[in-house]
Amino acid sequence: MSKPFKKILITGAAGRLGTELRRGLVPLAESLVIADKVACEDVQPHEEMKVFDLADEAAVMAAAEGCDAIVHMGGAPFERPWQDVLDSNIRGSYHIYEAARAHGVRRVVYASSVHAIGYRRLDEGMRGDAPPRPDSLYGVSKCFVEALASLYWDKFGIESGCIRIFSSFPEPADRRMLWSWLSFDDMVRLVSSCLTAPHLGFTIAAGMSDNKVKPVDMSNAGHIGYAPQDSSEPYREKVEAAHPISDPKALSTQVIGGYFVDMGHPDDEGEP
Amino acid sequence: MSKPFKKILITGAAGRLGTELRRGLVPLAESLVIADKVACEDVQPHEEMKVFDLADEAAVMAAAEGCDAIVHMGGAPFERPWQDVLDSNIRGSYHIYEAARAHGVRRVVYASSVHAIGYRRLDEGMRGDAPPRPDSLYGVSKCFVEALASLYWDKFGIESGCIRIFSSFPEPADRRMLWSWLSFDDMVRLVSSCLTAPHLGFTIAAGMSDNKVKPVDMSNAGHIGYAPQDSSEPYREKVEAAHPISDPKALSTQVIGGYFVDMGHPDDEGEP
Amino acid sequence: MSKPFKKILITGAAGRLGTELRRGLVPLAESLVIADKVACEDVQPHEEMKVFDLADEAAVMAAAEGCDAIVHMGGAPFERPWQDVLDSNIRGSYHIYEAARAHGVRRVVYASSVHAIGYRRLDEGMRGDAPPRPDSLYGVSKCFVEALASLYWDKFGIESGCIRIFSSFPEPADRRMLWSWLSFDDMVRLVSSCLTAPHLGFTIAAGMSDNKVKPVDMSNAGHIGYAPQDSSEPYREKVEAAHPISDPKALSTQVIGGYFVDMGHPDDEGEP
Amino acid sequence: MSKPFKKILITGAAGRLGTELRRGLVPLAESLVIADKVACEDVQPHEEMKVFDLADEAAVMAAAEGCDAIVHMGGAPFERPWQDVLDSNIRGSYHIYEAARAHGVRRVVYASSVHAIGYRRLDEGMRGDAPPRPDSLYGVSKCFVEALASLYWDKFGIESGCIRIFSSFPEPADRRMLWSWLSFDDMVRLVSSCLTAPHLGFTIAAGMSDNKVKPVDMSNAGHIGYAPQDSSEPYREKVEAAHPISDPKALSTQVIGGYFVDMGHPDDEGEP
Amino acid sequence: MSKPFKKILITGAAGRLGTELRRGLVPLAESLVIADKVACEDVQPHEEMKVFDLADEAAVMAAAEGCDAIVHMGGAPFERPWQDVLDSNIRGSYHIYEAARAHGVRRVVYASSVHAIGYRRLDEGMRGDAPPRPDSLYGVSKCFVEALASLYWDKFGIESGCIRIFSSFPEPADRRMLWSWLSFDDMVRLVSSCLTAPHLGFTIAAGMSDNKVKPVDMSNAGHIGYAPQDSSEPYREKVEAAHPISDPKALSTQVIGGYFVDMGHPDDEGEP
Amino acid sequence: MSKPFKKILITGAAGRLGTELRRGLVPLAESLVIADKVACEDVQPHEEMKVFDLADEAAVMAAAEGCDAIVHMGGAPFERPWQDVLDSNIRGSYHIYEAARAHGVRRVVYASSVHAIGYRRLDEGMRGDAPPRPDSLYGVSKCFVEALASLYWDKFGIESGCIRIFSSFPEPADRRMLWSWLSFDDMVRLVSSCLTAPHLGFTIAAGMSDNKVKPVDMSNAGHIGYAPQDSSEPYREKVEAAHPISDPKALSTQVIGGYFVDMGHPDDEGEP
Repeated sequence: MSKPFKKILITGAAGRLGTELRRGLVPLAESLVIADKVACEDVQPHEEMKVFDLADEAAVMAAAEGCDAIVHMGGAPFERPWQDVLDSNIRGSYHIYEAARAHGVRRVVYASSVHAIGYRRLDEGMRGDAPPRPDSLYGVSKCFVEALASLYWDKFGIESGCIRIFSSFPEPADRRMLWSWLSFDDMVRLVSSCLTAPHLGFTIAAGMSDNKVKPVDMSNAGHIGYAPQDSSEPYREKVEAAHPISDPKALSTQVIGGYFVDMGHPDDEGEP
Repeated sequence: MSKPFKKILITGAAGRLGTELRRGLVPLAESLVIADKVACEDVQPHEEMKVFDLADEAAVMAAAEGCDAIVHMGGAPFERPWQDVLDSNIRGSYHIYEAARAHGVRRVVYASSVHAIGYRRLDEGMRGDAPPRPDSLYGVSKCFVEALASLYWDKFGIESGCIRIFSSFPEPADRRMLWSWLSFDDMVRLVSSCLTAPHLGFTIAAGMSDNKVKPVDMSNAGHIGYAPQDSSEPYREKVEAAHPISDPKALSTQVIGGYFVDMGHPDDEGEP
Repeated sequence: MSKPFKKILITGAAGRLGTELRRGLVPLAESLVIADKVACEDVQPHEEMKVFDLADEAAVMAAAEGCDAIVHMGGAPFERPWQDVLDSNIRGSYHIYEAARAHGVRRVVYASSVHAIGYRRLDEGMRGDAPPRPDSLYGVSKCFVEALASLYWDKFGIESGCIRIFSSFPEPADRRMLWSWLSFDDMVRLVSSCLTAPHLGFTIAAGMSDNKVKPVDMSNAGHIGYAPQDSSEPYREKVEAAHPISDPKALSTQVIGGYFVDMGHPDDEGEP
Repeated sequence: MSKPFKKILITGAAGRLGTELRRGLVPLAESLVIADKVACEDVQPHEEMKVFDLADEAAVMAAAEGCDAIVHMGGAPFERPWQDVLDSNIRGSYHIYEAARAHGVRRVVYASSVHAIGYRRLDEGMRGDAPPRPDSLYGVSKCFVEALASLYWDKFGIESGCIRIFSSFPEPADRRMLWSWLSFDDMVRLVSSCLTAPHLGFTIAAGMSDNKVKPVDMSNAGHIGYAPQDSSEPYREKVEAAHPISDPKALSTQVIGGYFVDMGHPDDEGEP
Repeated sequence: MSKPFKKILITGAAGRLGTELRRGLVPLAESLVIADKVACEDVQPHEEMKVFDLADEAAVMAAAEGCDAIVHMGGAPFERPWQDVLDSNIRGSYHIYEAARAHGVRRVVYASSVHAIGYRRLDEGMRGDAPPRPDSLYGVSKCFVEALASLYWDKFGIESGCIRIFSSFPEPADRRMLWSWLSFDDMVRLVSSCLTAPHLGFTIAAGMSDNKVKPVDMSNAGHIGYAPQDSSEPYREKVEAAHPISDPKALSTQVIGGYFVDMGHPDDEGEP
Repeated sequence: MSKPFKKILITGAAGRLGTELRRGLVPLAESLVIADKVACEDVQPHEEMKVFDLADEAAVMAAAEGCDAIVHMGGAPFERPWQDVLDSNIRGSYHIYEAARAHGVRRVVYASSVHAIGYRRLDEGMRGDAPPRPDSLYGVSKCFVEALASLYWDKFGIESGCIRIFSSFPEPADRRMLWSWLSFDDMVRLVSSCLTAPHLGFTIAAGMSDNKVKPVDMSNAGHIGYAPQDSSEPYREKVEAAHPISDPKALSTQVIGGYFVDMGHPDDEGEP
């Protein structure tokens, strides 16, 4: 059986998630364009490496040529000074969508983030596509791209899956990740679901594994067919032994963005 | 243990689903009245065959005599010219409810259809009992019977389960059925749930198997206790090999009614 | 300024509401086709009288020729035996929509009824387009036409306003009408709103005047611009003097359909 | 790994659920204070027995000293005359919350009940934290404590999990329990989830096992991480053989409170 | 025209609101029983004065004899020590409902309070019947009575209107009252609406005048027909001149309960 | 009585709305800083003119010094090429919020736009704060600023009112404006409401006058106290005479963004 896509562009391919996707998306595409600011290691025969900065519109345009899907994981993965957020996440993502429009790309999967809604409370019973409530400039930039994705579907017919990734790491690293963890395999499953869903349109989906604590109702994305198969439970004992219980009265304990709500402004002296 | 029903009338008993129900409802009734326009094959000792047209009110009345439940799968199973829809689905179903009223039938299970809400979009996050949005005269007739069932519960105390059957076939036959498929066994489970639920009242339930892609939230029918056990996944590879990806910009790809939205009016020349 | 419509067909033109509309729609159309089973009195120069039964498809087709809107008030205005409901409300309304399709009619305004949702409770805080919960065969037929109107918009692009008329009489005639009353002038305003709304699509709107007691939230139809200007208050004293307080434990006091919920089946002996 | 709590006070420790919790909460606390009106049997070395009446504020205060959590299962477990409900459930629970405030208790888990919402209908698709609709004075007292728990979180920062226990018995004892059953093990899981949830705040959670019939959407409590592992299915055959089908027109069949809705006022002569 | 009630019992008749109701309910009842802990002044011929404490069940019973409605404004009107709240608001209101049951009273109107939901935020877009979120023991007692009223309707058929009174004073006395004010005349209108609504059942209604700032959607009580006619606007200049702008970061500025959220526990030393 | 603000910065002060606000906000501030890319005419004694580009962060910072509120109407008022949208709306608004943070500004009122949700349909019954569905790059930039405003409230305590202005012109200029019109006086009322609301926090409010056709439910902003006093009705005849009825099947007729949905990409050749 032929693969559903001829060529998929993966941005942020040298990063933590991009590395997993290079492996995980092989079943879906005949070849991959892997793009990052730095060169990836071990480039495979079915892969084509492109090194550039997302702020470079011409380079983004060139990378997307011939692709029928883009998995856009690139950009700053964390709170950063405004200029960085502006260049890599806002301008960079705009370039991605323009490239998609220019080259007839059918679908874009975008690494949005829990931090687009980080001030929402664990007990408010939110849906995965809850309206914006960002906890950082980083989170604001994610809201921007979600809005952009909405426009490019409604006006230009480019389908987008915006995945609000919670915590995608090799294993849960603290108590919060016992509920926010998205295993790498589930992350690949979720990206793959967006690429193969019968209808994607403009979809915002929460990205978590099948952890016991589920603060977010993911049923709004039932139509993409994501079925997580991992859970943080096997790591519970280890995590709980290593990390004390969070202060129940701290805001960071009560919201889904966690410690992001405690960070100051990134341009202030002494901030990260 | 005695069976919960003495005698169940199954209409459309010679059809695809009726045939399955003849087998599947045996545990729930001491005997079955099997009715259709044509005679069924292999009538069993616990079965009583009745051949008539649903438009024949007297025949319907006679068939329901002595029954304490009706599983009404009869009528046109597809878009048909208006006169057919009127006679078999509208008039025929009215006869069924009148027969239920005349003979003290406790519960009716009705084969409604996804086409009662076929214009709803895959990504709108609908409930199984979403308000009408039919995609055909066939679908309009299903809305009529759902309204009738509501009346007969509220006014006459006859409980009804209206099952919006998506695609009940031996196996998924195209890419749409990878999400809309209702296996025969799950169909029997769903009808049985309606018959044995602790309280049915007037319930509309979506009828799908436990497929990965779930465009409809079926939790509104949690009180009937339907737990699907089949999935379309084992058929995915075969189906995807045989059928190309649907055009993402086609309306039929985006709505739950599928190609029904592309059909013209059945009374127009050249239409089915 | 030219009028928005060239020719409007009014069915049920000899009835209570039709008579008001003959007067009230003059500003919206250059001429009117007025249709009923019996001839109207005082036919005006801008009016064309057509006498026929709605069950006569050819006559309906002929009446709609050249019309760009239909205001469909015809059919049985009350609970009737099934055959009457079927012929005048179900078959008759189907003929209306087929005529609209055949003759390129842009908009249909349909006299639906509170009895499409008559079993809903006064205190449940329903919207004007609440899902079906009919209280009579009459109400079921209204649900049928609403579903039909939905189909003809989605599939054939004919816009429909389905007005769930509560109680449109010269003045409130009992205590229930103190909240359910729709003055004739407000009825004309509501029909006119449907005809002139910037976008109608498929809209279900509740039809009441600006009475003090408002069991239905009419804001779902804000986009049609209906602003009632009458109220039942001036009639309160007279009505309360003439009618005792309803029994608070009677179902008919608690639901919006009123005494319709107490009526038996119309085909039973002794029923109306 | 150290246990999350130093000392937990369990009220109602001699009762059906308290007995299970003495066993089940061992992994969560270094020691238990077990309290009841009568002495428990087999007091263990890690347990401290306190015998008193909940109406005795000083005794409650003393029992909570040194505890960092309270699992409050005490009080009348059934409809009782007003004076009993007042003393044990209203005054008694107030004493519990005051003791929690006095002694810096972090979390309280409270045995609320389905009877706080017993008049809700099986088919209304309610959430676990549906607004009050009690079916008894007992149920009213549960609503009181839920409101009190809300206050003590918002104003005093004491987290509470109010579990609306449906039917927690060794096994399902009648047909209603086929859907309302909460196994003892699942009850322990649910209490434990409340004690260990990353954020509890003020949470109302429905307490049922993973039974097939699910009239309540428990997803509002996803953030506490309760995953039931038992089901009533293994008991179905036995229960159905022993109990006839409920009358479908009886209110007690249609609401989640069951036969409580049929009980008169407990202070009337002849009432329980 | 005869008045709708023969005899109405008004509790708290000597208080601020009770005094207004003695005047305002004259059109609705042939005679009034006015009850309070202290004697009212200027008892009129159509009035019968009864002096007793609500904690005295026998006295409450006697006062309700012969009444067909109770307007229950009595009890502590403010945060009070627990014992006072228990005696006057919890036990006292229970006596009222028992008296209603004993004497066949048709309707009870209860002075609930904004403080039943005082922790809700001004900007959360709440309905008038939002679930409990009390800000004081006083508020918890209001939640208790609302639950009791629900029970007495569902089980004993006594209709109740629970009015969540915001701030009913002669005129707005501070900046918060510019939105929370309920004029005395509107208070009388709201109580009268509850008494005369076509169907009351169990209704919770927010009590505010037609002020410009409307933090609560009162449409859930549209079925009782309350139409406020007063507004705080005429008092704005005076109030704003006398009171500085509230601190925007203070919780008491952000919630509907105002400064109640800042009060400590009433039983603590030094608290009111 | 002293005015609520000492000094308000108005950006876009030379524009259509800015000019009105220079007049309209006089009652709320002792002095105004009026800022634009070009100098305003007729600068008044209580006004201080500042000419700069919003992309100039230092100039924005300087302008906000000493202000306790900012009314931010500046930036591109229409669809523009990406670089313009980026500089004036995204970067420029970021500078505004940074200036607010640096100078302790209490409240910001931002001119968001209907084009943040322009693809929503007239008949979908949306709230004023419906989630993003932009119809242009201009609209996407509005979504960005709304998200930014949310962050600056949650994290830095700066209150924001984001007004989604529909069509604020001297008078309705086409048929769409008969429902989307916001009179200048109502615009001033709405900005003033945001500045004086008892609690603003982060609020998104729709900006329309009291027109007959109301596609948006503005009650989500009831807590700010906006009461429109103008209506498009007096202009109806004139507008309808000058403009033909819109094509009912055109998307631009069916959505609230109007013809913006028909515009191509602004960077494409030949686009505006």
